[in-house]
Amino acid sequence: MTRGFWSDNASGVHPRVLAALAEANEGHAPAYGADRWTAALRERITDHFGPDATVHPVFNGTGANVLAAQVMLRPWEALLAPAASHMLTDESTAPQRIGGTRILPVPHTAGKADAAAVAAVLEAPRRSVHQPEPAALSLTQATEYGTVYSAAELDEFATLAGRHGARLHLDGARLANAAVRLGTGLGGAAGGAALVSFGGTKNGALGAEAVIATDPVFAEPLERLRKASAQLASKQRFLSAQLLALLEDDLWRRNAAHANAAATRLAEGLAGLGLHPRYPVEANAVFIPVPEGRAAEIAAVLPVVPWDASTLRAVASFDTAEDDIDALLTGLAPLVEP
Amino acid sequence: MTRGFWSDNASGVHPRVLAALAEANEGHAPAYGADRWTAALRERITDHFGPDATVHPVFNGTGANVLAAQVMLRPWEALLAPAASHMLTDESTAPQRIGGTRILPVPHTAGKADAAAVAAVLEAPRRSVHQPEPAALSLTQATEYGTVYSAAELDEFATLAGRHGARLHLDGARLANAAVRLGTGLGGAAGGAALVSFGGTKNGALGAEAVIATDPVFAEPLERLRKASAQLASKQRFLSAQLLALLEDDLWRRNAAHANAAATRLAEGLAGLGLHPRYPVEANAVFIPVPEGRAAEIAAVLPVVPWDASTLRAVASFDTAEDDIDALLTGLAPLVEP
Amino acid sequence: MTRGFWSDNASGVHPRVLAALAEANEGHAPAYGADRWTAALRERITDHFGPDATVHPVFNGTGANVLAAQVMLRPWEALLAPAASHMLTDESTAPQRIGGTRILPVPHTAGKADAAAVAAVLEAPRRSVHQPEPAALSLTQATEYGTVYSAAELDEFATLAGRHGARLHLDGARLANAAVRLGTGLGGAAGGAALVSFGGTKNGALGAEAVIATDPVFAEPLERLRKASAQLASKQRFLSAQLLALLEDDLWRRNAAHANAAATRLAEGLAGLGLHPRYPVEANAVFIPVPEGRAAEIAAVLPVVPWDASTLRAVASFDTAEDDIDALLTGLAPLVEP
Amino acid sequence: MTRGFWSDNASGVHPRVLAALAEANEGHAPAYGADRWTAALRERITDHFGPDATVHPVFNGTGANVLAAQVMLRPWEALLAPAASHMLTDESTAPQRIGGTRILPVPHTAGKADAAAVAAVLEAPRRSVHQPEPAALSLTQATEYGTVYSAAELDEFATLAGRHGARLHLDGARLANAAVRLGTGLGGAAGGAALVSFGGTKNGALGAEAVIATDPVFAEPLERLRKASAQLASKQRFLSAQLLALLEDDLWRRNAAHANAAATRLAEGLAGLGLHPRYPVEANAVFIPVPEGRAAEIAAVLPVVPWDASTLRAVASFDTAEDDIDALLTGLAPLVEP
Repeated sequence: MTRGFWSDNASGVHPRVLAALAEANEGHAPAYGADRWTAALRERITDHFGPDATVHPVFNGTGANVLAAQVMLRPWEALLAPAASHMLTDESTAPQRIGGTRILPVPHTAGKADAAAVAAVLEAPRRSVHQPEPAALSLTQATEYGTVYSAAELDEFATLAGRHGARLHLDGARLANAAVRLGTGLGGAAGGAALVSFGGTKNGALGAEAVIATDPVFAEPLERLRKASAQLASKQRFLSAQLLALLEDDLWRRNAAHANAAATRLAEGLAGLGLHPRYPVEANAVFIPVPEGRAAEIAAVLPVVPWDASTLRAVASFDTAEDDIDALLTGLAPLVEP
Repeated sequence: MTRGFWSDNASGVHPRVLAALAEANEGHAPAYGADRWTAALRERITDHFGPDATVHPVFNGTGANVLAAQVMLRPWEALLAPAASHMLTDESTAPQRIGGTRILPVPHTAGKADAAAVAAVLEAPRRSVHQPEPAALSLTQATEYGTVYSAAELDEFATLAGRHGARLHLDGARLANAAVRLGTGLGGAAGGAALVSFGGTKNGALGAEAVIATDPVFAEPLERLRKASAQLASKQRFLSAQLLALLEDDLWRRNAAHANAAATRLAEGLAGLGLHPRYPVEANAVFIPVPEGRAAEIAAVLPVVPWDASTLRAVASFDTAEDDIDALLTGLAPLVEP
Repeated sequence: MTRGFWSDNASGVHPRVLAALAEANEGHAPAYGADRWTAALRERITDHFGPDATVHPVFNGTGANVLAAQVMLRPWEALLAPAASHMLTDESTAPQRIGGTRILPVPHTAGKADAAAVAAVLEAPRRSVHQPEPAALSLTQATEYGTVYSAAELDEFATLAGRHGARLHLDGARLANAAVRLGTGLGGAAGGAALVSFGGTKNGALGAEAVIATDPVFAEPLERLRKASAQLASKQRFLSAQLLALLEDDLWRRNAAHANAAATRLAEGLAGLGLHPRYPVEANAVFIPVPEGRAAEIAAVLPVVPWDASTLRAVASFDTAEDDIDALLTGLAPLVEP
Repeated sequence: MTRGFWSDNASGVHPRVLAALAEANEGHAPAYGADRWTAALRERITDHFGPDATVHPVFNGTGANVLAAQVMLRPWEALLAPAASHMLTDESTAPQRIGGTRILPVPHTAGKADAAAVAAVLEAPRRSVHQPEPAALSLTQATEYGTVYSAAELDEFATLAGRHGARLHLDGARLANAAVRLGTGLGGAAGGAALVSFGGTKNGALGAEAVIATDPVFAEPLERLRKASAQLASKQRFLSAQLLALLEDDLWRRNAAHANAAATRLAEGLAGLGLHPRYPVEANAVFIPVPEGRAAEIAAVLPVVPWDASTLRAVASFDTAEDDIDALLTGLAPLVEP
């Protein structure tokens, strides 16, 4: 299969990450994280997230989110998250079953939480035992709709959460794409979040994510619960080596910048067809309007996914080529003619 | 770090597996298992486990066991497992928290379940609602003590379980080592188990395990619960490619045979020192008796782990060299002199 | 404390129920449900719910709902429920933590589920493993807003659910009030529900609810999971005796009719004050509009609860007296004058 | 059914408790514990358990134990309990499913935990993430075998637990019987336990238990988790009133003393038949040796339960009469003749 725009997890592994795996394959190493790659990763993460940051590699994004939710919440507390968040739309019953986590949906615009709605929930009078206390807020950066919270927006949410003693979590499956958009480091794109699900897989890793905590109070719970959540790798060096490779020489930035630029170029091409993306193209996803009811048939012949009856989703990857974009535009043109 | 005997997960990745990862890195592929490597893996697994077998790659052994337990048990049922089993000794609270699984320990000898004790539990009169029904039995093949159930022993347990409507599960983190010992294929080493946690990681993979079901009734529950247990990889082709590489040209067999032979050689060397392993050396683990109270200090200077105060555990890997064995024996000799 | 309108669980025990407890207190009886009161209850329940119905007494409404959800759902499935349902608004994290249950909120009008919205969810194309299958629908009868589904409405939902293989559950904490409104027996008010949380407590019991199943397939799972959910009473005869007392001579109906009539009378009195309840008064609850921002201060001096800033909730009980209603109206009049 | 010795939960309700329920049935009262009976109960509990003690009524013993376990343990920690404990033998999968609780069995003698074994577990070197930390110990007082921990024994366990930062919990389903044996108040029989599951049901209540915490740190978690565990009664006054009735004028003591004395009298009568109870008769249970294989048939004709093939269990209640004992002895005599 050649390259497409189905998702950034349809892409493969960046050559530098593959090379890093081979380089990490030297003799034996202590299992379960007591290896030097994990130690080096911790160092690199503190460059981005501050000297107290700890990093806890896990297998996948659902694992990262479920783990973060567990350490943020006492069992009678709830997590606030936009109704569009991955935890609510794409993680089946994992949060409920693994962590007993209750998630309260909040309204959003183009994937970004409605601050007034979040404030209303947090500012409501203290609840009785009948309602779970909203004790944490999870935002996605970049969002599932390809939009990016600005630094000011993140600040607003962090301040709001902090004022009510709530934790802030970022689902950063595409944190690198957001950082590129914002022109910051990874920590900058995460604002004041106490916990970050940091994604490597969509950025060019084979399969590596991590929960990053900026507050050391979470370190032991994360280590313990990572095991109890079946997210601890025995040959962890190979998870850490992947993430390290992305952090070396800012490979993460180059990969994300490439993907973001490809999305932008695609959006520009669509404009030439009179198609204006449904949401601002701020990261690597483009939501393409098509005539009502045509999405499925178009997705059957072009490398995109139907989002709803009149929308296609196209996601660019670190390896998206200009030819890929041109081919998509060329294929799309006759299908969306009025 | 050079090679040691801490565990077979301290070893790295077999070169063929690394190569297979590189080969699988061709363009884009559908995520979440709709890729051709996963399809090919299914084919190869049926060679070993029969035409109805399905295979569900997961990230790690705890994930595989927790998933298998969930599909075997209704929520008021319990799993029987030897007290030495990994699920009871090394998986923290993962079975309880992820699956709500209750595990009833049964006695064992050198890691192998006591058939009479299992029979006694299964044959006990039907219980009231106050006691969980024992509805499944999990055995480890090869066991945590480096022993291997014979085909006749597996038959006995499968028959026993079947007679009482209980499911049989094999924790096959080291199934390849058992198959080598028994001179069978992988399916043969799994006897009549309905569900197998098949381990690739200790056999030379970077990190890949799978739950294999021989009864198609489990296929959909496994697919659904794999997601709900956060064990579904987005770039699944790279899990499947690892397992495929092990199955190609019987690499799994060569790797396990190498490790088993190394363990045997180590045991022979130990005999020369007057040290007779605590359990029969039937796979790749050797439990070395040392003077009472000396285990920790010896483990501090030699590449083994202290098992108890008077026992060291040494586990051979696919890449254990004769020099490694000789060095261990040489290092050990002066430390265990009477 | 004299009588009020805070909730129908602020009321006490109907004298006939107390008498039944004393009558059941004769000598010893088998524990855990093997008693003659439970057997008699089963008989009476089949009068209402058909010959195959089974009844499983539990302690409280949350326990009943959590138990029903568990037997209806496989672990990767979800429950649909109106956003106003008790399970979503007043049961803290119990469904998530006890049953791992994921509940998908659906829109409602005055507490009644929006049929089109439910249909849209159920009729959506079959989902991938990433989304939980919507496999059951829970309605509340009478609703949390004091409205009642008509027989035709229940039929519509039962048909809709059945067409998609989904189970229908009724949270019948106030099923008696609905039956009075509809002029049916209890079974009639439950429509085609496969499972009913039948409430005795709000109807005059000391504390007794039950899960009723109309399909025998649920009987064993309910018995087993009732224990595993800590909802099995040792001296169960005293739960069954309460429910029996309510069923004898249609005490349930008289109690509910009294409460419903009181609510209607209150609504009429309110109309005299120019206050028109926010929702149709079809059972025993009245939602009283008050000037914006005044609800809390009024609730501080009158026996009602503030629902939102401009609404009070008043719930009538089996023992509400005309004087109680008059006193409330008299107290309210000067507080709501323009 | 007349009185028997099946269990102390086959007995009914003490007349004073029934009267207390009727007395509590005066008008309306705030639901969910904000009533004056619950406030009075708190006062009386501090008489027994100290001024900081809080009391949290629940429905049944499994509910109490499951709740206590949840507040004592972080999700990666384990509870130690004798293999004979109710949590391990008679609560199905409730601890695992509701709380995700892992319970590690420890050896016991006649129901009492082996102190050396507990010490060995607690004193073992700090574990890795692979093993759950043993962070709490649950003892049963009086035990499931009718034995009673002395004050010195409780002290030993409290000191041992405290030294390792572990919590001590008492399953006090029969705490009253232990207090009578020890000649102490209820607090005295609970030793230094941080949490107590206090049983009213077996002592003459209709159905009322409570979790009592001596350390205020547990108060809010208990309130919150009681709701989230479906153990919060709406008409809680009727649970509190039952417990209050038992505490008034030391009714609990008279009831337990009666039952203990009956058991002692039964044991003496058995001695006259040459039958010596299998365990010391220190509370209200007697384990009667019978010829091998005869237990079931004897239990079919006498009001006792078969414990194992050669043992019957007889439990005396607050209302056991001398005639009941005599009838049992008379019935037993011909059946156990050599």
